[in-house]
Amino acid sequence: MDNTALTALQYGFDTFYFLICGALVMWMAAGFAMLESGLVRAKNTTEILTKNVALYAVACVMYLLIGYHIMYSSPEGGILPSLGFLIGDENSVESVLAGGDDAPYYSARSDFFFQVVFAATCMSIVSGAVAERMKLWAFLAFAVVMTGFIYPVQGFWKWGSGFLNEAGFLDFAGSGIVHMAGAAAALAGVLLLGARKGKYGANGQVNAIPGCNLPLATLGMFILWMGWFGFNGGSQLKMSTIEDANAVAQVFVNTNMSAAGGLIAALIVARILFGKADLTMALNGALAGLVAITAEPLTPSALQASLIGAVGGVLVVFSILALDKIKIDDPVGAISVHGVVGVWGLLAVCLTNGDASLGAQLLGIGAIFAWVFGASLLVWFVIKLVIGLRVSEEEEYEGVDLSECGMEAYPEFTKN
Amino acid sequence: MDNTALTALQYGFDTFYFLICGALVMWMAAGFAMLESGLVRAKNTTEILTKNVALYAVACVMYLLIGYHIMYSSPEGGILPSLGFLIGDENSVESVLAGGDDAPYYSARSDFFFQVVFAATCMSIVSGAVAERMKLWAFLAFAVVMTGFIYPVQGFWKWGSGFLNEAGFLDFAGSGIVHMAGAAAALAGVLLLGARKGKYGANGQVNAIPGCNLPLATLGMFILWMGWFGFNGGSQLKMSTIEDANAVAQVFVNTNMSAAGGLIAALIVARILFGKADLTMALNGALAGLVAITAEPLTPSALQASLIGAVGGVLVVFSILALDKIKIDDPVGAISVHGVVGVWGLLAVCLTNGDASLGAQLLGIGAIFAWVFGASLLVWFVIKLVIGLRVSEEEEYEGVDLSECGMEAYPEFTKN
Amino acid sequence: MDNTALTALQYGFDTFYFLICGALVMWMAAGFAMLESGLVRAKNTTEILTKNVALYAVACVMYLLIGYHIMYSSPEGGILPSLGFLIGDENSVESVLAGGDDAPYYSARSDFFFQVVFAATCMSIVSGAVAERMKLWAFLAFAVVMTGFIYPVQGFWKWGSGFLNEAGFLDFAGSGIVHMAGAAAALAGVLLLGARKGKYGANGQVNAIPGCNLPLATLGMFILWMGWFGFNGGSQLKMSTIEDANAVAQVFVNTNMSAAGGLIAALIVARILFGKADLTMALNGALAGLVAITAEPLTPSALQASLIGAVGGVLVVFSILALDKIKIDDPVGAISVHGVVGVWGLLAVCLTNGDASLGAQLLGIGAIFAWVFGASLLVWFVIKLVIGLRVSEEEEYEGVDLSECGMEAYPEFTKN
Repeated sequence: MDNTALTALQYGFDTFYFLICGALVMWMAAGFAMLESGLVRAKNTTEILTKNVALYAVACVMYLLIGYHIMYSSPEGGILPSLGFLIGDENSVESVLAGGDDAPYYSARSDFFFQVVFAATCMSIVSGAVAERMKLWAFLAFAVVMTGFIYPVQGFWKWGSGFLNEAGFLDFAGSGIVHMAGAAAALAGVLLLGARKGKYGANGQVNAIPGCNLPLATLGMFILWMGWFGFNGGSQLKMSTIEDANAVAQVFVNTNMSAAGGLIAALIVARILFGKADLTMALNGALAGLVAITAEPLTPSALQASLIGAVGGVLVVFSILALDKIKIDDPVGAISVHGVVGVWGLLAVCLTNGDASLGAQLLGIGAIFAWVFGASLLVWFVIKLVIGLRVSEEEEYEGVDLSECGMEAYPEFTKN
Repeated sequence: MDNTALTALQYGFDTFYFLICGALVMWMAAGFAMLESGLVRAKNTTEILTKNVALYAVACVMYLLIGYHIMYSSPEGGILPSLGFLIGDENSVESVLAGGDDAPYYSARSDFFFQVVFAATCMSIVSGAVAERMKLWAFLAFAVVMTGFIYPVQGFWKWGSGFLNEAGFLDFAGSGIVHMAGAAAALAGVLLLGARKGKYGANGQVNAIPGCNLPLATLGMFILWMGWFGFNGGSQLKMSTIEDANAVAQVFVNTNMSAAGGLIAALIVARILFGKADLTMALNGALAGLVAITAEPLTPSALQASLIGAVGGVLVVFSILALDKIKIDDPVGAISVHGVVGVWGLLAVCLTNGDASLGAQLLGIGAIFAWVFGASLLVWFVIKLVIGLRVSEEEEYEGVDLSECGMEAYPEFTKN
Repeated sequence: MDNTALTALQYGFDTFYFLICGALVMWMAAGFAMLESGLVRAKNTTEILTKNVALYAVACVMYLLIGYHIMYSSPEGGILPSLGFLIGDENSVESVLAGGDDAPYYSARSDFFFQVVFAATCMSIVSGAVAERMKLWAFLAFAVVMTGFIYPVQGFWKWGSGFLNEAGFLDFAGSGIVHMAGAAAALAGVLLLGARKGKYGANGQVNAIPGCNLPLATLGMFILWMGWFGFNGGSQLKMSTIEDANAVAQVFVNTNMSAAGGLIAALIVARILFGKADLTMALNGALAGLVAITAEPLTPSALQASLIGAVGGVLVVFSILALDKIKIDDPVGAISVHGVVGVWGLLAVCLTNGDASLGAQLLGIGAIFAWVFGASLLVWFVIKLVIGLRVSEEEEYEGVDLSECGMEAYPEFTKN
């Protein structure tokens, strides 16, 4: 019998599993684009679409050029990254067949593919929060730094075997490293940018600014839900053993159940608070469930996963209301979904994973937030000085589609 | 050479195949949401979206809590299910490596994942038929019972080794157990609910109520078509032998060809009847092709599959016209697509599968329809008594989006 | 240890890889439908949707009936195809287990599935270019000949081991055989059809006719990007060896990077030329990147792939402007994206693949273009004589949705 052929087949299978999961995560870029374009007004739709497609491309290029090196070639246990370019060599056939614990069991290129779509996901989170008033090129300038440097540095701290990994911080697929990080960058931008005109009245009232296309927003949620099977499922990194296969299956089930729990909880809480079945809260509830389970989708039972998601779904409703109270204007609720619930997800690891420690989780939350928020604030601030963050009041009134992109998203549908 | 590693790899592969097919079926939830929201009027769009996302979540939770147990842990050959909770244990490594015919060859969790998305699919069929006039919470109350009890009981009869399985009833992926069952539940609801105001005139004329967003409906059809590869392809349950791999490939080809046949047939029939290329009939024709082949996607040749689908495509056009004649108002044609053509699919098994018997197929059709229709009628009736099924006439006129969800789906596009 | 089980598992895995890649390519049909329906006017949306769903079904049936036979059963090294029907037998278990270089390593049915969706893709390219003025049934008549005969003949020349293959022409996944071929057929149709009324003014000015739904167009681009992982990734045909697995991973990475490069380049060029971030150019830039890398997605490094895509992104902007200068009216830019950039992709093979020769590439470009353009021109001409290609001026003014399909795509959104 042919051990070589078996090893090759195993390698091929684990590579394929990784690539398909990566393709599902890439698909999440479409999910964010649809979600966000459904939740903004018609006059700001072309611009949010342009941001979404462009940030994905920028993320790919920057992560290829320097991000991947920073994240996965920096000194073990370290805080400071090492700089370098590009993505290294593919595994040789010999190295795979050498066997032993160090032998690679999937293609190095498939690893890059899986990681680069994570970097893009993190950046996608930002675009929604700063929608409807930020300059497009200012946003893309931030995307360059975020995906090339800010995201990879903290990614290295955990997934690249940096100091957070040594400290015992646990984050299976990135409630913190991807989602809370994206939310922290968004928060910094929103604070410097200010709220949309008309969102908050003089007497403290909060004016609802309804999204223009709820089927798109719903489609975006479904795309994200589907893509999340790759996001969490691929983070097991391997599937060719019985233990790994069982783990991936558990991750799929828990990811699904947590989203379901979040959706139902948000729907019920919104029903109690507002008296209606609030679709946008249901959508955010599902996403909250997904974020909540991402830090630990393996150790909970399916029922526990539902409950972890449900807590996320409750949290997101109150967080969205609370942020509006303090006039942090986030048109799509991204800071609540990915930030607040991301923290919940990181803490919830302690509930089901015996290896987790509250101290390490808090350290991770603090370190990631401090770094991403601080660095982002600085970068946003520099961009503000150099080219400005915000469109003019008139451009905001007319819609950023015309000022930034020169074309309407729905030229035949809108009334004016 | 390492037999253990080979068994593990095989287990990992069959589990992955199952999970990916399950993810494609989950994606069908988005397909139903888009299809239905494209075929209703703008004023009822938010509500149909909310129903679709919520029913998926409800299905997941109810099937986790009791449905899966009913469907797969009830007494062999039986009619009455046994009650019980949750989904049992994952396979141990030892049980997998034990070998023999009883050794599991894919993760138990992947099986749950694949089955739970089927339960959600069955419920998705219902939402379209009762659109534009049913109360949202009444619908969700029904979803609780349907996915937790009604669907699993008849699923147990066949796929859980109940009496229909013993009787020789054949239904590969669920023309009957999923599609006709969903349509039977929908029909019961529609009969109690009545037609939309204005659909049928005093003199017997049928008024067309056009859908508001045909690109969405088309997208929904494409999503369903894609997801169906998982639905039918995954129902082979195994792919790691040559015979199984060939079978799955045949299923993919036949699923695709049957949809193509259904689409073309419906397009031509509608052209003959109405003089135009009727897009909504073409979409329903493709879905009819998919439903028709679902009971037996393996034994037909590709050409036979095209013809089985084509008959489905013809049937669906006449069925939609016939239901309107008898004033059964189904806004999206779900009862025709999934019910009438589901029956056709179950009968068509006899054309290509030598193991099928007309008697067993008729028994299955009768038993499933009687159970699902009867139980659903009872449940809908109780809900009608307790909270009512139908919104008020004024709410229907204003659109259920405002009364049920408190928000419009397209606040900037619609004229009024 | 069990060599038979290992061979079977390998066969199952390579079949699964092929089927999943095929499902992703099938999904591209939805991408074209969304892209095109987003870029036309509201009044021509139902018709473009109908064309897209119907052409996919027609392609499946025609390729099943005769196209697959032509493409893969014609004489080796030849120019003239042999005619024949249907798709042959599935591999027997014995043939797989026989071993040796001739033993099939994936299901014959999975091969048909993968190839049939390529035929549909080629036809999808045509529909956008002739949008907004062509008769629906004339288009479908062309689809019958294109997918049953014209496409398979040149496909046979390369992928069916015909004379272009012998001449050393290289086209990994079809920059020429699929994309340029589709564009050539479209160009022939557009030349006979003429420009849309009002597109070109009397004094040589080009009037922009904006698309009605840019989120749909963006969604279409994302779907195509995702589907392209199957399109290029599946064209390696095998994944069960280390070399093949590494190759597929490289193809995924390069496909992604080339699209990113094309998007960014087109965005920047459009910014320089027009002063704005032009979303539709960005979308076409991404698609140009995808087309450009399709002829050789394996040998470039990731960085080279980005640059190959970037050149495609630059080219597509200038090509779209140039075609408008010479009054070739292509509403979605398909001829530029798939034709002009397809040629670039075929030439770019020489930059990174040592086995390529410029002569062979030019021969392939010339032969494919001459055949597809010439044959298509003839077929379009015959259709024009028999049933006519173009709707009446009044029908064009009113929109082809009413004249061809009898229903509006957005009856509640448009103003008139």
